[in-house]
Amino acid sequence: MVVPERLRVAVVGATGYTGAELLRLLLSHPRVQVTALAAREKLTPRASAMLPALTGICELPIEPFDPDLLASRADVAFCALPHGASIPAVRALRERGLIVLDLSADFRLRDPATYAQWYGQAHGAPELLAEAVYGLVELHREALRGAKLVAVPGCYPTASTLPLIPLLREGLLHPEGIIVHAMSGVSGAGRTPAASTHLPETAEGVRNYKIAGSHRHTPEMEQTLGEVSGRAVTITFTPTLLPMTRGILSTQYATPTRGLRAEELTACARRFFAGSASVAVLDPGVNPDTLWVRGSNRAHVAYAVDARANRVVASCAIDNLVKGAAGQAIQCLNVAVGWDEAEGLRAPAMFP
Amino acid sequence: MVVPERLRVAVVGATGYTGAELLRLLLSHPRVQVTALAAREKLTPRASAMLPALTGICELPIEPFDPDLLASRADVAFCALPHGASIPAVRALRERGLIVLDLSADFRLRDPATYAQWYGQAHGAPELLAEAVYGLVELHREALRGAKLVAVPGCYPTASTLPLIPLLREGLLHPEGIIVHAMSGVSGAGRTPAASTHLPETAEGVRNYKIAGSHRHTPEMEQTLGEVSGRAVTITFTPTLLPMTRGILSTQYATPTRGLRAEELTACARRFFAGSASVAVLDPGVNPDTLWVRGSNRAHVAYAVDARANRVVASCAIDNLVKGAAGQAIQCLNVAVGWDEAEGLRAPAMFP
Amino acid sequence: MVVPERLRVAVVGATGYTGAELLRLLLSHPRVQVTALAAREKLTPRASAMLPALTGICELPIEPFDPDLLASRADVAFCALPHGASIPAVRALRERGLIVLDLSADFRLRDPATYAQWYGQAHGAPELLAEAVYGLVELHREALRGAKLVAVPGCYPTASTLPLIPLLREGLLHPEGIIVHAMSGVSGAGRTPAASTHLPETAEGVRNYKIAGSHRHTPEMEQTLGEVSGRAVTITFTPTLLPMTRGILSTQYATPTRGLRAEELTACARRFFAGSASVAVLDPGVNPDTLWVRGSNRAHVAYAVDARANRVVASCAIDNLVKGAAGQAIQCLNVAVGWDEAEGLRAPAMFP
Amino acid sequence: MVVPERLRVAVVGATGYTGAELLRLLLSHPRVQVTALAAREKLTPRASAMLPALTGICELPIEPFDPDLLASRADVAFCALPHGASIPAVRALRERGLIVLDLSADFRLRDPATYAQWYGQAHGAPELLAEAVYGLVELHREALRGAKLVAVPGCYPTASTLPLIPLLREGLLHPEGIIVHAMSGVSGAGRTPAASTHLPETAEGVRNYKIAGSHRHTPEMEQTLGEVSGRAVTITFTPTLLPMTRGILSTQYATPTRGLRAEELTACARRFFAGSASVAVLDPGVNPDTLWVRGSNRAHVAYAVDARANRVVASCAIDNLVKGAAGQAIQCLNVAVGWDEAEGLRAPAMFP
Repeated sequence: MVVPERLRVAVVGATGYTGAELLRLLLSHPRVQVTALAAREKLTPRASAMLPALTGICELPIEPFDPDLLASRADVAFCALPHGASIPAVRALRERGLIVLDLSADFRLRDPATYAQWYGQAHGAPELLAEAVYGLVELHREALRGAKLVAVPGCYPTASTLPLIPLLREGLLHPEGIIVHAMSGVSGAGRTPAASTHLPETAEGVRNYKIAGSHRHTPEMEQTLGEVSGRAVTITFTPTLLPMTRGILSTQYATPTRGLRAEELTACARRFFAGSASVAVLDPGVNPDTLWVRGSNRAHVAYAVDARANRVVASCAIDNLVKGAAGQAIQCLNVAVGWDEAEGLRAPAMFP
Repeated sequence: MVVPERLRVAVVGATGYTGAELLRLLLSHPRVQVTALAAREKLTPRASAMLPALTGICELPIEPFDPDLLASRADVAFCALPHGASIPAVRALRERGLIVLDLSADFRLRDPATYAQWYGQAHGAPELLAEAVYGLVELHREALRGAKLVAVPGCYPTASTLPLIPLLREGLLHPEGIIVHAMSGVSGAGRTPAASTHLPETAEGVRNYKIAGSHRHTPEMEQTLGEVSGRAVTITFTPTLLPMTRGILSTQYATPTRGLRAEELTACARRFFAGSASVAVLDPGVNPDTLWVRGSNRAHVAYAVDARANRVVASCAIDNLVKGAAGQAIQCLNVAVGWDEAEGLRAPAMFP
Repeated sequence: MVVPERLRVAVVGATGYTGAELLRLLLSHPRVQVTALAAREKLTPRASAMLPALTGICELPIEPFDPDLLASRADVAFCALPHGASIPAVRALRERGLIVLDLSADFRLRDPATYAQWYGQAHGAPELLAEAVYGLVELHREALRGAKLVAVPGCYPTASTLPLIPLLREGLLHPEGIIVHAMSGVSGAGRTPAASTHLPETAEGVRNYKIAGSHRHTPEMEQTLGEVSGRAVTITFTPTLLPMTRGILSTQYATPTRGLRAEELTACARRFFAGSASVAVLDPGVNPDTLWVRGSNRAHVAYAVDARANRVVASCAIDNLVKGAAGQAIQCLNVAVGWDEAEGLRAPAMFP
Repeated sequence: MVVPERLRVAVVGATGYTGAELLRLLLSHPRVQVTALAAREKLTPRASAMLPALTGICELPIEPFDPDLLASRADVAFCALPHGASIPAVRALRERGLIVLDLSADFRLRDPATYAQWYGQAHGAPELLAEAVYGLVELHREALRGAKLVAVPGCYPTASTLPLIPLLREGLLHPEGIIVHAMSGVSGAGRTPAASTHLPETAEGVRNYKIAGSHRHTPEMEQTLGEVSGRAVTITFTPTLLPMTRGILSTQYATPTRGLRAEELTACARRFFAGSASVAVLDPGVNPDTLWVRGSNRAHVAYAVDARANRVVASCAIDNLVKGAAGQAIQCLNVAVGWDEAEGLRAPAMFP
């Protein structure tokens, strides 16, 4: 595999939060040059008109999606479009030879029937599903090398499966009966104002939503947990909307297959994540905090055992827009083209 | 029982958040007169020097705890002292004949051995435990009538047991394997500044704490759930600190004893809470939000069933300082002396 | 004047923040009964569907505006409609004999030409302007007695003129060159979601808006300051949007007419506000904080003198939805019908 | 001047917010290597124990201040100590030949008498004042080249003087009667928990503090404004504590020397800041927002004219920890040693 020195990249869906975060990170990445921005709305001759943070830093236009134009300007495209809208865009970009990092849900589920069941419509490009690699880097690093189409994992699935993967692989947990309770900052709901994100009705309010098997990230988690368990897995998933901007804290409850101490779980995970530039396994007794990963591509993972109730309590904090979206997409690109996996992603969290 | 027209009340521990909230509510209660304030620190000739919200409204002095003085001025005492400190104060007040509403944990656990195990010291007044009534009004309304010493329930136990009580009483849930994941605003941590409540390290941070069987509210919940189940119960409890001031949202996971729909659970709870001025059972599909109960003595309860995973998901939102502390204490007083249970507690939440 | 024992009241515009706050306060007011709710949208058979805080507390329908129906059910109407929409509604209600408390800007400016200049259209009911009393209670208490139509002051004008009124009346300040810098929580922008109130773009952002003579509260302040100064006043007004829900902190800069100390200013204000149930003048050196008035009908006022620069720095904190809107409207009603001015408004701030 | 390829840097005061922010930025700076960390407290063998964001990224020890050790390991020291404590540390480091960027107030005031007056003690190292360059880069770029001791400006002075400098230099403003009203997130108050930064008492509270000539940043602003005006300047300065973590929005009020439009002021500032990598002058009508500069070394400046009141209203948004502290310090180092001024500082703001 020839490792490129530098690549030209386009961001499609540049005006949303994921697009904006891609730009923040890509503009500091030493091996990429951002050469084109596309979006479905908020088109403008100067990106800073829609993203004032870019004033004097990046003044590219934000243009309508035009795959020929993008192909003439870029080698790589990051697609941050809503699910459904992503399928035709990705197909057009792949047909023109671009490497595509897709941040929607459109290529994450391997089984088109599962997609149809949860998204209410047939998958529009099942032939591309075979090509797509699910980009949970820590699990699929080898499959990602040379990949041309990457389905970047969802934010909740990233935070909720990372801690369980090492334990399930080693048979330390029963795959049945897992409960995932994950809380997210409201940036996960996107840039469109709504009552549920209106500051006066959010700043002092916390609520669950899409509970009891109705959130679309459920099958994505079950797919990953099933893959590492070797059998079908059904989970209970509760997402909670938090009165803050960034960050996911996911807590997982599972039954151990034998008497286990937190130290053993921690050691198991440290073996699995050894050398990772993105995952840190905290010492037993330390609880992950979204504060410590905000703005970074880091996941903080920790384990506890509730001996009274014979239960493993695992948890993980990430920034939903970085390790849960834009950062993980760049991490996937780094692996796919042969660069250092942490290139452009080494900055620690912004504290405070 | 002779129902008094009006009572004189003292607040002990007036300068903390629970004390301040007691004052806010008692000053609007039509049948009480606040006649004395005591505290362990922040003593002052004018309460408004420590609680500027009272400027021009209540200018009583905040004095050291003196049971004789309090007995000369008040018929009732609300005790909002830390656990341990409450025992001698309550004993002194009871010896002088005052009705005592104790908001600490000191009289909540019926078994002194359990207290000793979780609080690390022998209980200093086991003889008073027999007199104390655990003031979860919706469960112990009858026992509270005429009570002279009330142990006001903890905030997490109130929000976490209310939804489960009707279902366990009717045998709809297995009492084994219950998981409680409850999130609280930081006012629950009290008025003393700390790193974990310092705004720059809290406003965009969310974290679990005292997980896996280490939080002291665990045995209190187990006591109530055991009482209504008729057998010993062990739960897994995870508390989470949220970046907001007030409110608890508790989610409980349990296994149904048979196929159940959310509508049946809702109907069961509505039977139990019928006529309650404090508990509203929401329609299936509506999720409780702390926003809608903030500042009020209301609990919003709701039920869902995850049919894929055969799991009941119950939830409850309260204001930790009102239904989780000061408001519930006043509700207990109302019942104990024979007033309308909602007296002084009818105001809806402050929205937004 | 015959003082009524109780009155039936309607709230028009019940689903906005001011309407919701009127309901919260009116439902606790011992002399009023809320009998009708009207709105332009979000109509519903049960108010709690739009305002879940009312669940189990107030289940009136929210109906379209119908003056005949309102006249059959209520003696008093609070009108919380947008400016422009208020004029025909108020006229219809006045024609049917209701006492009207109007919370819009439509009847605040005495001069229809000023209204036309700042609101871009001719005033639709100049004949009612003569009847309307501007309800800054502390300044116009006498004029309010017996009033049938009250123009409730704006939130910024309330917080920005209260501290200056006593000083200007006594000639302690030059009325020229006054600067008002007032910061408001985002509830002042209303209940409609927008980019500027979307939590992710508000929680860590602070910005001025409508600066340099473009905010419509400017002429309202100039009218009051001119009235007490005895001559035309032109101010510079800067409003700032703060990342919080409730509260206005207004700071005013003015030039003293002679050497003055903060103590003299404080004494002057205490004379003027003596006996007020709504305004507290803080000791010199204590700075008002919106925290201490949140949820209450209180204004905290304070004075400082910058001797180096020969400048008076006055400041005032209020809750924009209470003393800046709903609470002041109720205070106006109390005075208009002869009740105790503080009836239903005595609760201290919700702290924290 | 020989421009070094890379430099080894130490951070003194590494555990505070400014120290942490220096680390975040320096770890991404391509020409520096962080080689030593010192602090007065929170000493630890692994930095991540005090700053968990560094877990797996930087595991240097945090050691007591030892100038000999630092001199053996580093070429440059950033000193983020409290004022007073900085003087002996800086002297020791300068004596050992290190380039020192001092972020305290100790070397900002040129006149030791002014220092003594505002800080209540004689300056401990007046001989070093002559060597110190005040590092407001946009004003003192030339003086900074080759500098060995830089006094990094305060956060309020940076945001409050930048907009005024170009106008005063060109004589467009009267230097008399300037008012500065600047609002800051609470990170400016440091990492030590206090009542005024305790989330429950801060999240919905806004207050002024140290008003009317009592804040120590006043003489620093007057020094800069006097320097560019050519005569002594006295200002009125009001700082406000905002319920958010990062960001300062400063608004300045001044009287124009002649009829001026916002476009002329904007053009004047654009001439002065031409080519700046840190200052963007926004179009008239656009108001700076701290959201758009958070985490970046950018200042957004804008101008308006209140023609009714003959007043210029200038404003500026910065991140108090970046352009107001750590970022500006690095910008100073870049200029001092001859690197590109924006090296390591090009990242746009983190949005949202």
